[in-house]
Amino acid sequence: MATWKAPLREYRFILHELLGVEDVSALPGYEEATPEIFDAVLEQAGTFCEEVLLPLNRSGDEEGCRFENGQVLTPKGFKEAYAQFREAGWIGLAASPEWGGQGLPKLLHFLVEEMISSTNHAFGMYPGLANGAYEAIRTHAGEALKQEFLPKLVSGEWLGTMNLTEPQCGTDLGLIRTRAEPQAGGSYAITGTKIFISAGEHDLTENIIHLVLAKLPDAPPGIRGISLFVVPKVLIDPATGAKTRNGVACGSIEHKMGIHGSATCVMNFDGAKGWLVGEAHKGMRAMFTMMNAARLGVGIQGLGHAETAYQSARTYAGERLQGRALSGAKYPDRPADPLLVHPDVRRMLLTIRAQAEGGRALACWIGKEIDISLKHPDPDRRAAADDLVQLMTPIVKSYLTDTGFESAVLAQQVLGGHGYIREWGIEQIVRDCRITQIYEGTNGIQALDLVGRKLGTGMGRLLRRFFHPVSAYLTEAAKQPELAEFALPAAKTLGRLQQVTALLAQKGLADPEEAGAAASDYLRLFAHAALAYLWTRMAALALAGLDGEDGAFYRAKLATARFYMTRLLPQATAHALAIQAGAKPIMEMEEAAF
Amino acid sequence: MATWKAPLREYRFILHELLGVEDVSALPGYEEATPEIFDAVLEQAGTFCEEVLLPLNRSGDEEGCRFENGQVLTPKGFKEAYAQFREAGWIGLAASPEWGGQGLPKLLHFLVEEMISSTNHAFGMYPGLANGAYEAIRTHAGEALKQEFLPKLVSGEWLGTMNLTEPQCGTDLGLIRTRAEPQAGGSYAITGTKIFISAGEHDLTENIIHLVLAKLPDAPPGIRGISLFVVPKVLIDPATGAKTRNGVACGSIEHKMGIHGSATCVMNFDGAKGWLVGEAHKGMRAMFTMMNAARLGVGIQGLGHAETAYQSARTYAGERLQGRALSGAKYPDRPADPLLVHPDVRRMLLTIRAQAEGGRALACWIGKEIDISLKHPDPDRRAAADDLVQLMTPIVKSYLTDTGFESAVLAQQVLGGHGYIREWGIEQIVRDCRITQIYEGTNGIQALDLVGRKLGTGMGRLLRRFFHPVSAYLTEAAKQPELAEFALPAAKTLGRLQQVTALLAQKGLADPEEAGAAASDYLRLFAHAALAYLWTRMAALALAGLDGEDGAFYRAKLATARFYMTRLLPQATAHALAIQAGAKPIMEMEEAAF
Repeated sequence: MATWKAPLREYRFILHELLGVEDVSALPGYEEATPEIFDAVLEQAGTFCEEVLLPLNRSGDEEGCRFENGQVLTPKGFKEAYAQFREAGWIGLAASPEWGGQGLPKLLHFLVEEMISSTNHAFGMYPGLANGAYEAIRTHAGEALKQEFLPKLVSGEWLGTMNLTEPQCGTDLGLIRTRAEPQAGGSYAITGTKIFISAGEHDLTENIIHLVLAKLPDAPPGIRGISLFVVPKVLIDPATGAKTRNGVACGSIEHKMGIHGSATCVMNFDGAKGWLVGEAHKGMRAMFTMMNAARLGVGIQGLGHAETAYQSARTYAGERLQGRALSGAKYPDRPADPLLVHPDVRRMLLTIRAQAEGGRALACWIGKEIDISLKHPDPDRRAAADDLVQLMTPIVKSYLTDTGFESAVLAQQVLGGHGYIREWGIEQIVRDCRITQIYEGTNGIQALDLVGRKLGTGMGRLLRRFFHPVSAYLTEAAKQPELAEFALPAAKTLGRLQQVTALLAQKGLADPEEAGAAASDYLRLFAHAALAYLWTRMAALALAGLDGEDGAFYRAKLATARFYMTRLLPQATAHALAIQAGAKPIMEMEEAAF
Repeated sequence: MATWKAPLREYRFILHELLGVEDVSALPGYEEATPEIFDAVLEQAGTFCEEVLLPLNRSGDEEGCRFENGQVLTPKGFKEAYAQFREAGWIGLAASPEWGGQGLPKLLHFLVEEMISSTNHAFGMYPGLANGAYEAIRTHAGEALKQEFLPKLVSGEWLGTMNLTEPQCGTDLGLIRTRAEPQAGGSYAITGTKIFISAGEHDLTENIIHLVLAKLPDAPPGIRGISLFVVPKVLIDPATGAKTRNGVACGSIEHKMGIHGSATCVMNFDGAKGWLVGEAHKGMRAMFTMMNAARLGVGIQGLGHAETAYQSARTYAGERLQGRALSGAKYPDRPADPLLVHPDVRRMLLTIRAQAEGGRALACWIGKEIDISLKHPDPDRRAAADDLVQLMTPIVKSYLTDTGFESAVLAQQVLGGHGYIREWGIEQIVRDCRITQIYEGTNGIQALDLVGRKLGTGMGRLLRRFFHPVSAYLTEAAKQPELAEFALPAAKTLGRLQQVTALLAQKGLADPEEAGAAASDYLRLFAHAALAYLWTRMAALALAGLDGEDGAFYRAKLATARFYMTRLLPQATAHALAIQAGAKPIMEMEEAAF
């Protein structure tokens, strides 16, 4: 089985040393979230994940969900685990106290989500989707709908879903065919078929609150004619409390590569009773608010997989005896040396580690900015934080899921044949993590969001929220001789990023396909610029801690920083060169020739 | 289901235009393998793979092998397909006519193997392993064993296996514990447990011929004390023809990520009767001859997956309507444009295509050299070809399987959510292909073989077999203005490779860990140097064909060459930079800190 312990020392480093979590505790409304509370909550969540979720991870994968007579049965143990999860209060962790939540910072929620994904991604889908439904209703619905649904979503008595995709449309939601007909009394009759609906049907809660995109009869065509509705599985008569089944049912569940414990449903709406959330035809706007939050959450899932991949592969590499160190036997008294002595095994482990630690720093930086954007008393500071969050959301989503998958594949490679069989649990990480690069907008769509939407916003205002502070920090850091080995390549990467950004701005104006052709490489280059900056900051902290009592921790941090700078960052050069080659090599192939 | 048609036009391009297959036909012993015979055999094999193997690919994955009462049952249809496969003569295609084979060139066999892997990798494991057993016996066994086993292996009446791995040893075969005790009459009693034995037990043939690594009682310790034995499942009394079951049995089969139709067995040898193949204690040498051939075959498997990934993703991208071209609707009369209009989708498809076409050119180049090394009348030419084959074997294995997997993952990404569910067959390609990076020596081991063994052989003699002709060709090509866009970056890559080779030679002498730390990046850089050379040659052919009647084919070839040069080859720079960073960033982390 996969190996995992909560990486609490890493969390403390990020929170207390890198980010200064006391800034978050100082925000109005977060008074109770003291730095000590951060540590205590993370420790408790870690124990829960290790003791309750991890033991169900492989069995949930093996058993999967079953579909019987219109019902979905989750794998053995999921129901009990969910009851414990609710009981322990993990559902409403970051939800507003107004609706019964604990109102803790998003930054803290990020790390709890990481641990859930590390130990049982499939299980985490159920509360994760409900969180999306909560946000949609809280942000966009009227008071009556809020009163009806939010308390039960926050307490976990009910779960929720997001119904977007249809057979003929995934990315292109303008093609939606599901219809909503106005009914007497202000409700709507929803009819249509939705696919790929995570948690669409299950046995964890009595009621499931579906958020559904559909078109009103007078809807303008395309993406501007979509409205958002809330459609409960069970209707409750407000007067009598009588329960009736709504006209929505699961038609089947998908057989898929991974996250077998998560039910992926075909949902048939047959005149189901629903209510409009927000304004008519403005459903996409409501959806986008929520999707941005969901995208960060998906990035965190990739990070969670990278962490488990690392811990599992490291454990194996330390125990498995095979071959001898190239420089001569390190453990001559044993039949062979552990895999850890081999440079190529170390290369793989360090790659995973650098990606997980760097990715976590990036996600948490943005997590802190979310809290600032929500709670800071200064509206300018809030706006600045929101800009940065918007800019970095597609990068966090894509980079953390791409490297999460790469990390899982590398960990599998460390285990060799044992990584390919089910027994060790590593191949499951590969299969489970793979979906994170696809859902909530494929990583290609994230890249288009970055170059097509985020770069141009406010004449480059979002970009400046990144370039200015990063550039200022690196300029100062480069003056410190002991930091130069980090700050100089980081500054060089930033320079390259600025250079290709200017190139894109110029070429993209004349030909939008130039931006599209560059998008994926640009996103990855941007991620490297952010990571090189963060690794420089982490290296500075490590250098300062080398002589303390936790010296071993900082020596390892410094070694990982050096590995990143010298062995991974060179990829930024390749991305820049690919971007500079332009769109022609991609667009010149005739369609029929593919 | 995955889409696949035999890529016959590509095969003709490689055989007749790039490699000059008439050189192979002209070799003594290959007189019957005329260029026309190549085409005819490939066409027939393509039809067989499309009609017989492809339809069993997904059902074989879903059903998998079953283990019941010591027996392994292959998926429904495999037995019948195997009977047809034998009947059609595909088993002994490249085997010697002396033993009933057709004696066709290895180059031809490579492409047949590609098609088998494209359409049913799991099925292909059974004849593939038997081929390894055939080669081991043919090359190393005495006349009596050859007479007993070869005709039936070549006819396919019996199948065979390779038994190397044990629970405590995979890569490090020096740790083998299986024992062989000499018996009266010249046989041996083999006792021990082998794991991960593909085709170790099944219902396709009555007898299974196991090749087994074991240690004699007087064996020196480690890798130099291993002997090779042949151990049939069923013993046949030479006098009476009476059949008795030998002391070898399958204990269980593995549940694994992919190739579910291939039985991966735990084999228990309990005093099983076997015979020594070749000399005592020289089993590793026998194994290596065979493993080199098997490694190339595994590379071909990766290529087969890349081809199916490409065809499947291309089909989907041409049919799926989603979104509009960035430059404005291309098909305003349809509800949306096909995915093919999107630059990022094209980037993914072209990456797969460039990897498949380039990988095939590389594999076939080496396939031709194998035929030359076996059949050329001039011993110097034979030796030169053998040198190049030795050098390039780890590169073909690693590069084709790494890019095969990357291609499968990219194809899955093109399909989005539909790539994640089983229905479309793409996620199976990802799961099946993954093993190719692991078995027959992990790709990390291939890289160590390249830097640790191949680079130094004959004071760099193997290397010169690559550097000299490639350098000579590129120098000439660079003088042709229309070829400069290919020849110049190819020459630059070759120069980088020569530079880091010199660096490694120098540093590796002082510290073998320098070579180990560079190995994987070095192998990939080497692959790029070889591919850039081959793409230059292919581009030259394409330029010459642009105005002919098959102009569309050559325009596409040229566009793919340009894509490779401008969008993929830049990765070579990153690999060179990583190598130049040296071993320190990999070795400085303390073992306990991992």
